[in-house]
Amino acid sequence: MALPMSADAPTDICAIVRALNAGDMRTCARLITRIERSEPNLVPLLQALYRAGGHIRIVGVTGSPGVGKSTLVSKLVAVWRKRGLRVAVLAVDPSSPYSGGAVLGDRLRMKEHSCDEGVFIRSMASRGQLGGLAKAAGDALTVLDAMHWDVIVIETVGVGQSETDIMRHASVVVLLQTPMGGDDVQAAKAGITEIGDIFVVNKSEHPEADHTVRQLEEMITLALCLHPEKTWRPPVVKTRATHGEGVADLAGHIDGCFAHLAAQPETARLQLRDRARHRVGELLHYMLEQRLRSGVGLLPENLIDSVVARASDPYALAAGLLARMD
Amino acid sequence: MALPMSADAPTDICAIVRALNAGDMRTCARLITRIERSEPNLVPLLQALYRAGGHIRIVGVTGSPGVGKSTLVSKLVAVWRKRGLRVAVLAVDPSSPYSGGAVLGDRLRMKEHSCDEGVFIRSMASRGQLGGLAKAAGDALTVLDAMHWDVIVIETVGVGQSETDIMRHASVVVLLQTPMGGDDVQAAKAGITEIGDIFVVNKSEHPEADHTVRQLEEMITLALCLHPEKTWRPPVVKTRATHGEGVADLAGHIDGCFAHLAAQPETARLQLRDRARHRVGELLHYMLEQRLRSGVGLLPENLIDSVVARASDPYALAAGLLARMD
Repeated sequence: MALPMSADAPTDICAIVRALNAGDMRTCARLITRIERSEPNLVPLLQALYRAGGHIRIVGVTGSPGVGKSTLVSKLVAVWRKRGLRVAVLAVDPSSPYSGGAVLGDRLRMKEHSCDEGVFIRSMASRGQLGGLAKAAGDALTVLDAMHWDVIVIETVGVGQSETDIMRHASVVVLLQTPMGGDDVQAAKAGITEIGDIFVVNKSEHPEADHTVRQLEEMITLALCLHPEKTWRPPVVKTRATHGEGVADLAGHIDGCFAHLAAQPETARLQLRDRARHRVGELLHYMLEQRLRSGVGLLPENLIDSVVARASDPYALAAGLLARMD
Repeated sequence: MALPMSADAPTDICAIVRALNAGDMRTCARLITRIERSEPNLVPLLQALYRAGGHIRIVGVTGSPGVGKSTLVSKLVAVWRKRGLRVAVLAVDPSSPYSGGAVLGDRLRMKEHSCDEGVFIRSMASRGQLGGLAKAAGDALTVLDAMHWDVIVIETVGVGQSETDIMRHASVVVLLQTPMGGDDVQAAKAGITEIGDIFVVNKSEHPEADHTVRQLEEMITLALCLHPEKTWRPPVVKTRATHGEGVADLAGHIDGCFAHLAAQPETARLQLRDRARHRVGELLHYMLEQRLRSGVGLLPENLIDSVVARASDPYALAAGLLARMD
């Protein structure tokens, strides 16, 4: 449990915004720790940071455990670094209770880029907050965004609800999988064509790799038939992340996807609106839950007692509270 | 997608309430299907049903996949039936996209009790609603509660967030597990003593069974030291559900737990209040999500555009909407 802390004073907020703007990684790391701890009163600071941001390319990378996400991201970072781009990586693991940059994984991942001032790598885990993790990831992205990285990668495990929510923060989503038999691809079909802008078949040395690529291509063709309004056809890229093979190709496709968005200002604007609306909803749910748990105000005891006595009902109370928002 | 339907007319609502009151199982099954389909406009009916209910003992049964929950529940139902009690079972599976009573499992489970008018068994699955499943389970319990069963069992898989939410609908929670090595019990420790009122070690013929019982007893002792305000010590029961062994003993402990609650009216009242508050919150989140997705009203385009343009921010909008509730 975090101790209740007072909000940052306005002068502190200015100093923090300036420090982040100047690329101070320690300030950044410290802020993400405060976010992970669900420290209260961060809102004024996050508001200032949000308003200072919005210029960054955010790439999402997702896939099941063991498909090679962190290796691929590490190689992608290397490709971008060679081009002189400054890159931040936020790895979010909804299944892990550990975090705080103390994870062994972070240290291993950092190794390759540890002396590089142009790279920031950080993982966040659930710490039991579950539903709040997507919200916390959004807060952390707000911090990173204010630092003017050239690219931010947000990496997460799997295709559950919280992962999908986390991926909504990204403009371009890379969905990673390993070669597998036909039936498995079919089973996975439902979700993935909704999520991915680029598909990667990693471990391309596997005998089923080309088969998986063909199956993905067919699924994409089908999905585009069903959604003729979509103007982007997700490419399928083969990689062998451990050897760096195909990674430059993937980086090219990521550029291509951003270029496509830039050439479609109306689509890009809709995406930004959609993301803003989703983010407001996510924060509203979070704040509402905090209020309800605090037991202050919203639900007075006498109303609750009337529900317990069945003189009223939970539907009436919930609808009444919602109606007040109008 | 459910077609939008008009709300039940007041006369229909009265007829449905009467039919349920008289124990009409087809009406009940049909209503649960409507709930599963997230049919709109069910609220007036559910309100009437909620106000007609509240007299039922709800027992929750939870545990990992494969521990033997459905077998145990089936045997428990048999014990209760011998005593002349009428029993409803609602099995909720957050991991399965299938449902509607068409699940093979339901038919297998029904077999033993298929000719019995005193038993109702039904499963519900996620159908992609995820966060909404606990809410839907609460709606289904509201329907069952209005039918005046003697006992309702709500059964769910695992110990994740949505399962925990589902278990909050029950007054007595039975946590089922299989015998396992010492370390596994330790790893599972964190959550389970918070959730269970009665612990069951199923497959009692297993050589590790007594070891697991002892470990659970130790964990319970520790948990009670940390929470001396708790007046109920969860018993640990050994069962061999496939052979019906220990099931009558378990039924006795369930009675004991209800008797304990009845003898502690203040604790019982706090539990009911807590549950009502939780239920209002759950419905509020659900209704809010519906409203936000409908795109009507709450978040006008011009406000969203100001967030996209970074002239405003999502925190300000969310806080503004929340403040309107006060």
